[in-house]
Amino acid sequence: MIVSLQPDIQPTEIQKINSLLMEHSWKVTEVLTQRGRYLVGLGSSEIDIRRVGILPGVKDVHRVKDAYKLVSREWKVHPTTIDLGSGIKIHEGECAIMAGPCSIEGQEQAEVIADLLVSQGVSIMRGGAFKPRSSPYSFRGMGLEGLKIFYDVARSRGLKVISEVLEISQIEEMYDYIDIYQVGTRNSQNFSLLHELGRVDKPVLIKRGMSGTLEELLQSAEYVFSNGNENLILCERGIRTFEKAYRNTLDLNAVPVLKEKSHLPVVVDPSHGIGVRRFVEPLTLAAVMAGADGVLLEIHPKPEEAASDGAQTLNFEESARLFDGIRRTVNLRKELELVA
Amino acid sequence: MIVSLQPDIQPTEIQKINSLLMEHSWKVTEVLTQRGRYLVGLGSSEIDIRRVGILPGVKDVHRVKDAYKLVSREWKVHPTTIDLGSGIKIHEGECAIMAGPCSIEGQEQAEVIADLLVSQGVSIMRGGAFKPRSSPYSFRGMGLEGLKIFYDVARSRGLKVISEVLEISQIEEMYDYIDIYQVGTRNSQNFSLLHELGRVDKPVLIKRGMSGTLEELLQSAEYVFSNGNENLILCERGIRTFEKAYRNTLDLNAVPVLKEKSHLPVVVDPSHGIGVRRFVEPLTLAAVMAGADGVLLEIHPKPEEAASDGAQTLNFEESARLFDGIRRTVNLRKELELVA
Amino acid sequence: MIVSLQPDIQPTEIQKINSLLMEHSWKVTEVLTQRGRYLVGLGSSEIDIRRVGILPGVKDVHRVKDAYKLVSREWKVHPTTIDLGSGIKIHEGECAIMAGPCSIEGQEQAEVIADLLVSQGVSIMRGGAFKPRSSPYSFRGMGLEGLKIFYDVARSRGLKVISEVLEISQIEEMYDYIDIYQVGTRNSQNFSLLHELGRVDKPVLIKRGMSGTLEELLQSAEYVFSNGNENLILCERGIRTFEKAYRNTLDLNAVPVLKEKSHLPVVVDPSHGIGVRRFVEPLTLAAVMAGADGVLLEIHPKPEEAASDGAQTLNFEESARLFDGIRRTVNLRKELELVA
Amino acid sequence: MIVSLQPDIQPTEIQKINSLLMEHSWKVTEVLTQRGRYLVGLGSSEIDIRRVGILPGVKDVHRVKDAYKLVSREWKVHPTTIDLGSGIKIHEGECAIMAGPCSIEGQEQAEVIADLLVSQGVSIMRGGAFKPRSSPYSFRGMGLEGLKIFYDVARSRGLKVISEVLEISQIEEMYDYIDIYQVGTRNSQNFSLLHELGRVDKPVLIKRGMSGTLEELLQSAEYVFSNGNENLILCERGIRTFEKAYRNTLDLNAVPVLKEKSHLPVVVDPSHGIGVRRFVEPLTLAAVMAGADGVLLEIHPKPEEAASDGAQTLNFEESARLFDGIRRTVNLRKELELVA
Repeated sequence: MIVSLQPDIQPTEIQKINSLLMEHSWKVTEVLTQRGRYLVGLGSSEIDIRRVGILPGVKDVHRVKDAYKLVSREWKVHPTTIDLGSGIKIHEGECAIMAGPCSIEGQEQAEVIADLLVSQGVSIMRGGAFKPRSSPYSFRGMGLEGLKIFYDVARSRGLKVISEVLEISQIEEMYDYIDIYQVGTRNSQNFSLLHELGRVDKPVLIKRGMSGTLEELLQSAEYVFSNGNENLILCERGIRTFEKAYRNTLDLNAVPVLKEKSHLPVVVDPSHGIGVRRFVEPLTLAAVMAGADGVLLEIHPKPEEAASDGAQTLNFEESARLFDGIRRTVNLRKELELVA
Repeated sequence: MIVSLQPDIQPTEIQKINSLLMEHSWKVTEVLTQRGRYLVGLGSSEIDIRRVGILPGVKDVHRVKDAYKLVSREWKVHPTTIDLGSGIKIHEGECAIMAGPCSIEGQEQAEVIADLLVSQGVSIMRGGAFKPRSSPYSFRGMGLEGLKIFYDVARSRGLKVISEVLEISQIEEMYDYIDIYQVGTRNSQNFSLLHELGRVDKPVLIKRGMSGTLEELLQSAEYVFSNGNENLILCERGIRTFEKAYRNTLDLNAVPVLKEKSHLPVVVDPSHGIGVRRFVEPLTLAAVMAGADGVLLEIHPKPEEAASDGAQTLNFEESARLFDGIRRTVNLRKELELVA
Repeated sequence: MIVSLQPDIQPTEIQKINSLLMEHSWKVTEVLTQRGRYLVGLGSSEIDIRRVGILPGVKDVHRVKDAYKLVSREWKVHPTTIDLGSGIKIHEGECAIMAGPCSIEGQEQAEVIADLLVSQGVSIMRGGAFKPRSSPYSFRGMGLEGLKIFYDVARSRGLKVISEVLEISQIEEMYDYIDIYQVGTRNSQNFSLLHELGRVDKPVLIKRGMSGTLEELLQSAEYVFSNGNENLILCERGIRTFEKAYRNTLDLNAVPVLKEKSHLPVVVDPSHGIGVRRFVEPLTLAAVMAGADGVLLEIHPKPEEAASDGAQTLNFEESARLFDGIRRTVNLRKELELVA
Repeated sequence: MIVSLQPDIQPTEIQKINSLLMEHSWKVTEVLTQRGRYLVGLGSSEIDIRRVGILPGVKDVHRVKDAYKLVSREWKVHPTTIDLGSGIKIHEGECAIMAGPCSIEGQEQAEVIADLLVSQGVSIMRGGAFKPRSSPYSFRGMGLEGLKIFYDVARSRGLKVISEVLEISQIEEMYDYIDIYQVGTRNSQNFSLLHELGRVDKPVLIKRGMSGTLEELLQSAEYVFSNGNENLILCERGIRTFEKAYRNTLDLNAVPVLKEKSHLPVVVDPSHGIGVRRFVEPLTLAAVMAGADGVLLEIHPKPEEAASDGAQTLNFEESARLFDGIRRTVNLRKELELVA
């Protein structure tokens, strides 16, 4: 059960709702986000929600049977819009493009990519400053200095930046140089990190774990939301299966299913989802037809020389062709009224 | 290595090629199909293929590094067209629709479905007569009698029929009442059945095993091809993963990868691939954008009353809407020049 | 629900039970096996089983909630013993050893292996005559001729033989040269084959599918049982996972769980379960401690020269050492009263 | 390549080795641990290691082909012993028992469990203070206060304590109240946390990720080792598969394979590995036969009332029986000379 509260509700009024629910053996968690104030109730005993709804200070009450609550579409049927400012948004019905290099490599690289994005009408640039690498001996990214360069290049061109955060201490460090925090697949259930991201007033994109269920991804989002941050994006990026012909197995089933379960936008990362450059185009367009609200793409002026993930990275010609394809596919999706 | 032979090659000439290859420690298998005559060589030692190419009776020679040979695109770069007669074909560049009930239930059901297909311009009707069921106590289909009814209804309307074959003895039984034999996911490595299907002069569609690799699927196709039948179709139908939110996980990565590896047409079964009716539409259109040469769809006038698989079956209104969507998506795919 | 019937029950009496159950919307299947006569009821409506129990001709009645029925331990709490004659048995509390080559290669090979088994007190010899191979170009076994040689060698030394059957037509062919039919992992859901094996009066060992659930394995056994053959053995042989360090992932969880779910003996194939010769010993002994009623082992006088699967095959010294280890582990298992 | 250096090696001498390797295009990382000083070289060009070995300050040089280096058994063939003091050790040849509650619940619970362990001769107590939970609304543990109570109870009885660390800031907080840090399955690739644990002079146990490969687990250990801490333990705890009959699928193949690949001790967590109380005993003993150097077990005076994971937790009677079984199984393992 989710009880939305009036902003000016009095502590004694909250206490009253709490008491009523606890009488019925419900466990209650108070949630205060940047947008609202809620009581999240967990329980199974019968209770007439109208008895809660008429209490002073209550805006409305919804039953939510899912194990996750605040991210569930049972409660909030209208899809969430992530507003990045300057008219740049991620939301149902469109397909936001977030493109850029796997690793930030320096000023010049950032500039040529940013220029391409601007020329192609793409508004969000992705790039890794802190890289999670399986081996401690691999290149772990340029770090904060790289991010600062990247952000300056982006901001001077009106682009927004998304980049991965690996640990709690980086949240504050990165704050001034980022528009969306990305939580990678290996940190999909790093609950300490997710909890802290609840305190931040910038959007968070959470990737599904390598073998994470949709339920787990939604619970990870619930961690952030219930600690204060409602600006969340879910991301399918391929799961781990027995098949060895590709790096990961992109699971497009997840797209319409996540969108039905949650009001949060759902984006897809086809670059990691298949991991092979020449197949990124068809899988990206497939993701759009499956209903993706956005895509994350790895691009580079010279993929062969990229500091990481070159094998799944598009060059500029391929990128431009794909951006055009995405837009035309979104148009078809609208004509077919596939996504509300 | 694949050596294509002239149709009129003499036994002594074949012997000569054999000898040359065996001298170089290559193992040779003679293959005679309904379309051609080949020698398939397995080996690793160096040999100048021009020495083979100039021998009498040899049409051409190709190196094929893949473990599968005759189904490989390394050898045959032009895609295979499955010609069902009456102008009905399955091939790269288009998207053949194969639709119908999971189980054949009788004359009336067959008629209303056939009429829908005809009215919608769909040319291939699917329907199960012999049903593989996990439990011996479940409905196992109407059998041959059902197939006969189904085929009569289809033929009288100009439709082609695809239906699943479960065992060797059914190959002959079904022969007069079928246009495409379907090998189901549980028989994907039933090599005895595949071998026998090599003797038949009708196309065979092979579904990927529940946890079958692409390599295994291609080797299964190689079984049929090397025993004589070149008319083969590969089918992705969802794999088994840890995710419990859907029946199977549709693997659209498989589509472009299979098409690169093989010259055979690749079709997708989104009904089984996600197993939830309301998500069949977006996944089908995603499959088309991923490059599918065809789709298999479960439809029924009253899905709620279907003898099997009702939960993933579309009603007529949904079907008509989806057929239209498929065609418009294929058009976009052509405009974008995604598939040659 | 399972209703055990008296052997001399009259058709009218069966009809009466049927009617009573059908009145309560239960679906009834009559099962006649080589050992008994049963009615298997599927339904969910409430019915007092004592009303069935007192009907003439009824031996006893049990509720069985599992989806599989006759193989369930809910009904038959005493474990099934497979009696191969000459005092050779497979049953709970002991650990039958079934050892031999992956592929039968000829008289001499059969003799040296049989001699080893006899000298080591092992009573059951395994060996493949018909080999399911992923590629049509691989060695597919010596066929029936090989099996005849193998069986003669075994019988002359008092050994029993287990060998894989691939298709229905082989059931009769193999009948005189075999003591246990083995159904391989790729045929684990070949329902036509399973159905036909129900007619045979020799034991059948069914391997779990590569990605088969325990529930599916039990349903496959139910196919054989419900068509007449109660002499069944379940076999865990490793499942397919994302891990690439070994051929398969042996799932020893399956052993105690299958034994709780079913009255059938459960054996383990560690050779395929890990696929690496030097690890077969620890995994075999682990399987024994997990509760296995038997093990299937690949052994060969010269594993390096084996026609197939040499990489997971033990030589004679390793075999003798392992047979001894198995026996001592079974003794410890008895002392610890791990298995009833 | 791993170059072990003399403790008193001079910077100019290190520089010389570096230069030689870099001349051959090798990438070199300097590693200083609490026990030694190394150069880790990554490269593929040919180099005569004797040329490195004779340089001043070099103790010895080994080629290591594995992607992980310092944790590889290619370099260090003698198994690592984890010495916890007071004669309590974890090492090859024995099987250390680490038992205790899933969650620390308070003084009384800690005392009765500690008393049981002492009476049973078990020396290491496990218990969670910080609990990673899928849902933010679940009990997340008593935190540091719980750990202090737990540690006091343990220390007063001569027991060692292992407990899970979730984030970097907890490393220092927990330091005085812990003997082994546990990194859970969800943090198995939390490289920031692993890196920081390299600075600590207490052992670290790293659990395999839910779908982590053995290679990834070894690389995670390499993170800790290469940042200074050689006291590492690897833990198999069940992987995620398609099978729904149990919480996880315990992968005992991993035990001998990890032990061959690495010199680090390998322990098993059967409680999570199967997740069902009545099957923990056979799977634990199977793990011992597979070669485990230790086991992690969840026990509780009243499993039904445990704050978490009660379904997989043993009561005291079951625990005592299992501890005895483990010892007798280790004895058999020694007699059979399964583990060196």
